[in-house]
Amino acid sequence: MYTLVVVRHGESVWNKENRFTGWKDVDLSEKGVLEAQKAGKALKEKGFEFNMAYTSRLTRAIKTLNYILEEMKLHWLPVSKEWRLNERHYGGLQGLNKAETAEKHGEEQVKIWRRSFDTPPPAMEVSNPEHPSHDPRYQDVKPNELPSGESLKETVARFLPLWNDKISADIKSGKKILIAAHGNSLRALVMHLEGLSQAEIMEVNMPTGIPLVYQLDKDFKVIGKEFLGSAEEVAAAMAHVAAQGKKKD
Amino acid sequence: MYTLVVVRHGESVWNKENRFTGWKDVDLSEKGVLEAQKAGKALKEKGFEFNMAYTSRLTRAIKTLNYILEEMKLHWLPVSKEWRLNERHYGGLQGLNKAETAEKHGEEQVKIWRRSFDTPPPAMEVSNPEHPSHDPRYQDVKPNELPSGESLKETVARFLPLWNDKISADIKSGKKILIAAHGNSLRALVMHLEGLSQAEIMEVNMPTGIPLVYQLDKDFKVIGKEFLGSAEEVAAAMAHVAAQGKKKD
Repeated sequence: MYTLVVVRHGESVWNKENRFTGWKDVDLSEKGVLEAQKAGKALKEKGFEFNMAYTSRLTRAIKTLNYILEEMKLHWLPVSKEWRLNERHYGGLQGLNKAETAEKHGEEQVKIWRRSFDTPPPAMEVSNPEHPSHDPRYQDVKPNELPSGESLKETVARFLPLWNDKISADIKSGKKILIAAHGNSLRALVMHLEGLSQAEIMEVNMPTGIPLVYQLDKDFKVIGKEFLGSAEEVAAAMAHVAAQGKKKD
Repeated sequence: MYTLVVVRHGESVWNKENRFTGWKDVDLSEKGVLEAQKAGKALKEKGFEFNMAYTSRLTRAIKTLNYILEEMKLHWLPVSKEWRLNERHYGGLQGLNKAETAEKHGEEQVKIWRRSFDTPPPAMEVSNPEHPSHDPRYQDVKPNELPSGESLKETVARFLPLWNDKISADIKSGKKILIAAHGNSLRALVMHLEGLSQAEIMEVNMPTGIPLVYQLDKDFKVIGKEFLGSAEEVAAAMAHVAAQGKKKD
């Protein structure tokens, strides 16, 4: 039996402004820092141990992990910063707030982008200085693998090689893994791990800053799933998930 | 030509108390945090870029690196946390302050341990719960490679495989490397890089929190060496080094 812990980063400075963030590298808000520290305290209180951590190449996830490691006195933990754990790339929508997006593309279209599993947003031009191909943090990635805008389906597709080639092998080798990532890269993980349909995963929303603990059997079948936090927080998180029609657990 | 930047962690909470720290995992003091932030600001102002960082498995070095990455907005940088960059292991002296050590072992003996290149301190018993063999952060290290107390000579010896097998290969591959480590693991690097004698390296003291920039030719010969900081800090650091009889630069 294996244990896997995943946590979604806390609030960023753009969450408050309700902008499409995607790969834009915005920092945690003060609330986001507190959420990360609380996640670390919860893991420490429950006596969790880890052998390594995975996170994305985006500051808000890395710093969430760092605050957790600070609380747990685990700064020494090996950390792998993987672009395949980055948030969904929102293409030409990145940086726009809801009102700006509706004005530019129409409300109906915005709904489709938010609710569809496989409709990508308008692509970001490769010539755009914000395109990941110009960012030194992705210089080890083949240019044709870097997204210009992703549907959730495409986010799942670029996440899976990381799971299949690295994370699942680490878990099988006996390593206790902590993953600090983003709403949609964690949806990709949840979809794969729980075998959810496209319709089902669209109804799953990961709560921020509340560690989710999976127990897996030797074939990686989910045999346990628990949110860590105060009774109140966990109840709220569970209600939140339940209200969104998640049927499988 | 290659550039290599090294920095010694800022003050720890034990530096103030003048205790033998070694592998004891004490945190940065408030002053140490400020030193680390200042190092980050200096590197940012000078426009340094990095492709990866090396540090030790000790919190004070890792956090020094994290504060630098925060200032430079480089949280995404791959970081390799290497036990071979740990501080010299002070064996049975770890945790003792100067007065306690003199009382227990005599002042003459303490001088020998401090000034000798190849006299190890009294060994820490493997049965001691503080021995690194009981610490999960070193579980990937062969037990017979873990020190129970080191002379500077032994610190150099366990540092060199990391340099020869990994860091120098990364530099040759074109990666710009930042190393955040400790007084004695950086002495090991300086000794090797500058080809210092045993007598010469004993006279070298690395200043804390001031980045040291090496320019290396294609054969790793040192062709430039510069401390980064305000004119005043650099002058003080240079005077400090010069006063200690360093002759080679």
